[in-house]
This record gives sequence, structure tokens and C-alpha cells, in this order.
Amino acid sequence: MVDVCLAGTGGMMPLKNRWLTCCFMEYNGKAMLIDCGEGTQIALSDAGCKLSRLETLFITHFHADHISGLPGLLLSLGNYSKVTPLHIYGPKGITGIVKKLCCICAVLPYELIITELDSKNPTTFRIPEIDSMIDVKSFPVDHSVECIGYSFVFSRKPIFNPEKASALGIPKQMWSVLHSGQSIELEGNTITTEMVTDGERKSVKITYATDSRPTYDITDNAFRSDLFICEGMYFDDEYSDSMKKKGHMLIPEALQIAKDAQVQRLWLTHYSPAMMNPHQYAIQASRIFDGVVISDDGQKISL
Amino acid sequence: MVDVCLAGTGGMMPLKNRWLTCCFMEYNGKAMLIDCGEGTQIALSDAGCKLSRLETLFITHFHADHISGLPGLLLSLGNYSKVTPLHIYGPKGITGIVKKLCCICAVLPYELIITELDSKNPTTFRIPEIDSMIDVKSFPVDHSVECIGYSFVFSRKPIFNPEKASALGIPKQMWSVLHSGQSIELEGNTITTEMVTDGERKSVKITYATDSRPTYDITDNAFRSDLFICEGMYFDDEYSDSMKKKGHMLIPEALQIAKDAQVQRLWLTHYSPAMMNPHQYAIQASRIFDGVVISDDGQKISL
Repeated sequence: MVDVCLAGTGGMMPLKNRWLTCCFMEYNGKAMLIDCGEGTQIALSDAGCKLSRLETLFITHFHADHISGLPGLLLSLGNYSKVTPLHIYGPKGITGIVKKLCCICAVLPYELIITELDSKNPTTFRIPEIDSMIDVKSFPVDHSVECIGYSFVFSRKPIFNPEKASALGIPKQMWSVLHSGQSIELEGNTITTEMVTDGERKSVKITYATDSRPTYDITDNAFRSDLFICEGMYFDDEYSDSMKKKGHMLIPEALQIAKDAQVQRLWLTHYSPAMMNPHQYAIQASRIFDGVVISDDGQKISL
Repeated sequence: MVDVCLAGTGGMMPLKNRWLTCCFMEYNGKAMLIDCGEGTQIALSDAGCKLSRLETLFITHFHADHISGLPGLLLSLGNYSKVTPLHIYGPKGITGIVKKLCCICAVLPYELIITELDSKNPTTFRIPEIDSMIDVKSFPVDHSVECIGYSFVFSRKPIFNPEKASALGIPKQMWSVLHSGQSIELEGNTITTEMVTDGERKSVKITYATDSRPTYDITDNAFRSDLFICEGMYFDDEYSDSMKKKGHMLIPEALQIAKDAQVQRLWLTHYSPAMMNPHQYAIQASRIFDGVVISDDGQKISL
């Protein structure tokens, strides 16, 4: 089960009633965060996300509304007695950016392990130490500066069948070992996970893309995602030129990607501060793609 | 008239219901801000402060809860079409700190004029271009890093006396020139400001000190302030050792300074996130110094 919370849905600047876009995901008791603008630590607390469980931070790009909350977040993690390393992933140059922003942080009681991703080519990786069951893919998007989208595939353990285990006479204290994927030796016989489970469960795919113009890469990487989180700055065509110039996306463009990519559901985010009530477009949006959610801060789902 | 708004009253980390300590002051249509932690731009908007009028920023020290909101604030000022320079004052090293934090800001459409103050000795100065009627004094306080307190003396124009002006036959369109302090020539006679006003008005003094242990310098600089804004992290003595170690102040210590300095009123601020309801100490506090205000976010006064 992956718990996802879109704690903030704003773009450009934090508003009194709308935090900047950031997404918190929890899987097997460990948490990941995508983007960290000003106020993200309050947004997370507001939405009931357990910041203390944060193990990994993904940054899309270096515009302030996606990273300026970093020093405060890092210090608060220290106050929450974090001692295990924090992994930070982001575009090329993130090591220097984190170092500069940390000029206002005292010594942190945990290690930062920073990985610079290729901002121009897709990269597939796993997060060391965190969980071998998460495949992460970063891919370039089309913004005014180098910017990365992320796609996560969470593998899920097969369903354990207690009847099969009992029939084989396997002691209960060994069930979790078998369920985790390890084989055991019992009275000279090798018992494998497949022998006590009911086949594979579908993995969960989540894709996150902001800030960007629509691109084929986004559609390709979002393909058949269970959840696609994508920016929609405005709805109306009148902003089209401005969006092209600034490297952002309109809501209808995000809806078209969701449709083309055959995703299960689309959560819109990164609304312009000038678009005070995105819900007014709910009906028009669902006519283009009926799996759309006009997200609010704190939007949650368990997948 | 000086309009003062303590937009935030928290210390360490921003909370859902308590912004980080920052003070906005407006005088003759121009605004100053002291400190700028994460979320300060929202705190100001929340309290109805006109961010677009900001001309000068004073920073006390480089801990994140006093400066991490800077990149977002600078970008938002740009979005508000600011073109006049922003003056930034702070301890030695502030030029480098601002430069580092601005690594996530695109080019700003206005100039930053940064002045490094002597963090170890008192310094008296005026803000060029802003207003010749504000005398600012910075003075060292006693924190875990170099930290500065500020004292502001706002001179006020003498009261204009229309009867005196009429008796001298001065045309109404020249009254404001005379009131501003300039003499005029009228029919061969020199008319001075003193001839059409009723003497000096008392200046307004505001002193701001956080984060610090109590020091004689604070008492000395706060002497007879109309408003003294001072930190009070906790009330209870049980935190005394921790406050000494970390360079912070207890509420009773702030009250004693206010009493010794004979200030008109003390606004407490920079509460610990662990002190959820500082108002519970209102009666005890007023027994030590009856001009105390247990400030809330958005506390305002016109002086």
C-alpha cells in the first residue's frame, strides 16, 4: 500500500490558503517527498504527514517555489531527532544548490546523501537502503530551466496464503520471512515464496510532472499510471502564449496527456495564484478526461 | 505616525497557527521589515501589510528562522512590480548569505543594496533615499551566533499652526513646504518653519531584540522606548539552563529589561513551538511589568 498526499497545490508563491506544490508518499513506513517550496514543512504537518519518517527527497528543479523550504525542512528533521541519512535527488547542480541553501543551517545531526540526476536523459534507479521494491525513473521535462519529472513503480508482495503454509507445516514465525521473498529450509526441503503465496499483485505506478510544457516524454512515462500528478496553471486558452513562453501547462493540456497516457486518475496541481477557484472548471475538465481530480491541499489516496 | 505590525511571533520553526517572528513598520508610506523566516511573505499578507511598499529589510542574524523566507520574499517583491532598490542591513557576512540564498532566484527586477553592520559594536545610521527622519541604531546582542538588535527613532514634524500661517499672509500652497522644514521667501521676508508651527513633537522610539540572553546593552538601547519588542521563549525557570546554553531569553527576563529600561510597552515574541499558549502567563507577566503584551501574530499599533 502506498499512501500519497499532495500536501500543497500552488505555484509561484505560497498563499494563505494554498501551499506550494509538494507530494508526500509513504510506503512500508518510509516516506518520500517531491519538491519543497516555502512552507512545505507546515503543509506536511497540516495534512498529517509524518515528516519524521522522511528518508528521501526528490527535487524537480531549482526555482524557489520548489526548493526554498529546504533549509527549514532540514532543520526541522534535525529537531525531530532524525539520525539516518536523508537521500536527496535532483537535477545536475543540486549538490551546490543544497550547499548554498544550507549556509543558514547549523550542523545537521544526520547525513545528506545527494545524487545529481541526468537532467537531459531518462535515468532509472533504486534508492539504496530504503526499499528495493521501488523503481524510480527520472525524465527530462520542458521548462524554462532544466527540470525533471519522476515516475515511481512500487512492487507489491504477492498475497500470502495461510492455508498453503499450514498445509506444508510451516511454523507461523517463518511466514513473514517467506512472504518477504526469502526461501527457507524445512526438514530437508526448500520452501519458496511461490509455494505459500497466490501469485503476483499488480505494482502501483505514480508519475509526477511539473513544471513543463506538454511533451511526448511525459505521456510516455505516465503511461498507465495509477496516479498521474501534473501541473495545470490555468484553464483558459487566453494564457496559452504566456504558458508557452514560461514553460508551463494549461489544465486542458494536462487532461490530454492523462487521456493519451491512459492513466487511472489525474491530480491537477501547481495552480497559478491568480486562479483562485480551480473547481469552477471541474465539469469542463471531466468532459475531456473523466478521471480528473481538481486537487486541494492535502489530497490523499492509498493505492 | 508609525504603523507597526508584528506579523509573526514564533521561534525555531513556523507552525500552522504561528508564523516566525517578523516585524513590519510603515512610516510616510514606506515600509521596513525586521527578519524574514520561512513563510514571512504569507504572514505579512495575512496581517494586511503592504509588501509592495517594502524599501528596507533588517536581518538580526543568519539562523534559518530569521532569514530563510528571503528568496521567496525577493521573488514576490519582483512579482509586485518593485523597481526601486531594496536596502538590506544585517550582520557582517550578509552579502555572501544573500548571494547564496539567491541561487534559487532568477534575475530580480530591482537592485539589492546590502550593508554589512558591525556585529560587535553599536552603529548609528540613516537609510539613504528612504527617510531622513529615521535614526537607526544597531547593537550587538548575546546569542549563539553574531546577532544584532535594532533601535529606531522616528522624528516627527512639529504641529502646523494654520492661524500663525494665515496671520503672516502665507498662501496655502506654501504651507506644506514650510511644514516639511524648508524656509521660504515672501515679499522680501524669510519665513521659517518655526514661525508657523507649535514646537517639536516627541519622537517615537521602537526597539527590537531577538535572539539573545539579557544584556545591559539591550536595556540601555531600549531605554524609554515607546515600544520594545523582545523575545520570550518560555516562562518557566525550568528552561533557564537551556536558554543560557542556546542564547535565548525567558519571558521574566524580558519583563525585567522592559521595567529597567522604563519602556512604555513590551511586546513579547519568538515563543518556543513547545509553548502553545503564552497567554496563560498574562497575569504573572503583568505583575512583573504591567505594560506587557503577550503578542499574537498580526499584533498592531500606530505610534
